[in-house]
Amino acid sequence: MQRYKVTIAYDGTKFAGFQRQPDQRTVESVLTTAVNKMAKTLDGTIKVYGSGRTDAGVHAMGQVVHFDLPFNIPAEGVRRGLNSMFPLDLVAIEVETVDAEFHSRFTNVGKQYRYKISRKDFIDPFKRFYTYNFKFNLDLALIKAAMPDLIGMHDFSSFVASGNQSKDFVREIFDVQLEEHPELDEIHFIFRGKGFLYNQVRIMTAVLLEIGSGRRPVHDILRLYEVKDRLQAPLTAPAHGLYLEKVFYE
Amino acid sequence: MQRYKVTIAYDGTKFAGFQRQPDQRTVESVLTTAVNKMAKTLDGTIKVYGSGRTDAGVHAMGQVVHFDLPFNIPAEGVRRGLNSMFPLDLVAIEVETVDAEFHSRFTNVGKQYRYKISRKDFIDPFKRFYTYNFKFNLDLALIKAAMPDLIGMHDFSSFVASGNQSKDFVREIFDVQLEEHPELDEIHFIFRGKGFLYNQVRIMTAVLLEIGSGRRPVHDILRLYEVKDRLQAPLTAPAHGLYLEKVFYE
Repeated sequence: MQRYKVTIAYDGTKFAGFQRQPDQRTVESVLTTAVNKMAKTLDGTIKVYGSGRTDAGVHAMGQVVHFDLPFNIPAEGVRRGLNSMFPLDLVAIEVETVDAEFHSRFTNVGKQYRYKISRKDFIDPFKRFYTYNFKFNLDLALIKAAMPDLIGMHDFSSFVASGNQSKDFVREIFDVQLEEHPELDEIHFIFRGKGFLYNQVRIMTAVLLEIGSGRRPVHDILRLYEVKDRLQAPLTAPAHGLYLEKVFYE
Repeated sequence: MQRYKVTIAYDGTKFAGFQRQPDQRTVESVLTTAVNKMAKTLDGTIKVYGSGRTDAGVHAMGQVVHFDLPFNIPAEGVRRGLNSMFPLDLVAIEVETVDAEFHSRFTNVGKQYRYKISRKDFIDPFKRFYTYNFKFNLDLALIKAAMPDLIGMHDFSSFVASGNQSKDFVREIFDVQLEEHPELDEIHFIFRGKGFLYNQVRIMTAVLLEIGSGRRPVHDILRLYEVKDRLQAPLTAPAHGLYLEKVFYE
């Protein structure tokens, strides 16, 4: 038996999210079918484990999954085998053999998400599924002043969607960055943290955009930590601007 | 009556090309419906004229069309009106009022096409509809040496698809450029010319890729002008890498 760590990218547009659901095309179900087909285990006994879920429409440039094969073949052969089975909106970028102690979800030490915002005054037809078009004025200095408020250990109760299943709302954010890409008319937010609550990145993004457009005081994030009330931060930036970019392991 | 020149962009993926066809979703039919809806001419009497056709799957960043409205409203109002009617894979980038002498097709003095080639060793899920993935080795020096052979007035009989309706195969190419975009793992070919034959840009692209990968002598284009035989240049680069980028007027 050999365990494989696989780094995948997917265009989330036509997936009903990562997690397997009855009668839905999800990343997990497409992966599971492909791996079992490649291994010729037609009963679908090989399970695929992801580092975590992504929602419908959310993309990934570096999601990590793992599975065990009953035989040992070279990593590059697994990568080619998977890619020959995958639809074109899913690709295996890298495959590595790993020890049985490796677990995509339980041994990761952090994740990096990227949120892409298009700054054109019209929705670019080529980016309509891949960026959130925000055409209103933004003062980036306000956003830069607010971003450090997100870094560190905080109670993110005001930043969690109602479907969240955990009871502990304290999460640690390592770093938040703003990237300007004038040649693309885009700005990107990059969030790195130990782990994130359901919709947390999209809610943080919406709050930063409200701050940048002057509709929320620059240090309102500190108040939101105190009030622990999602109704005070009711907006969620749309799924199609969000990318799971990296999953970190020791 | 007022004539409007409209610069549009479209994602060609879900259009059956530019030209109106029965029971097909084409750019021309979507434009015509939107313009007549905006002008409240429900009988569809306002005709929309494009600078030329693009094939199914071919994109446009700067296609130009024109039409006449029975009333005179500001260009910016027309732009907003159109964009409120358009689906998200089509957008009006710029609208200008023009004289009745202006004609998108007959008064244009040239066009610029861009062909985007992705150089990853796998098909990037985010680019599958927007670049041609060519993973084989390319010697760009060979391509650069061949490109000047395309410039000037030439008989492009070897570079025309069988559906072409014209009988004169001489066309003038003003300029051919190679752009390298290492940060995107892409190279782009840019072709500027007075006008192009059916599939000419995609056939020239395929020939340049054959030259770059050593499967065709570097100056074989000169031979292709002589033989006037499409069977000697049988490949056509796929539609989804091609963009109509600009249409030039005096």
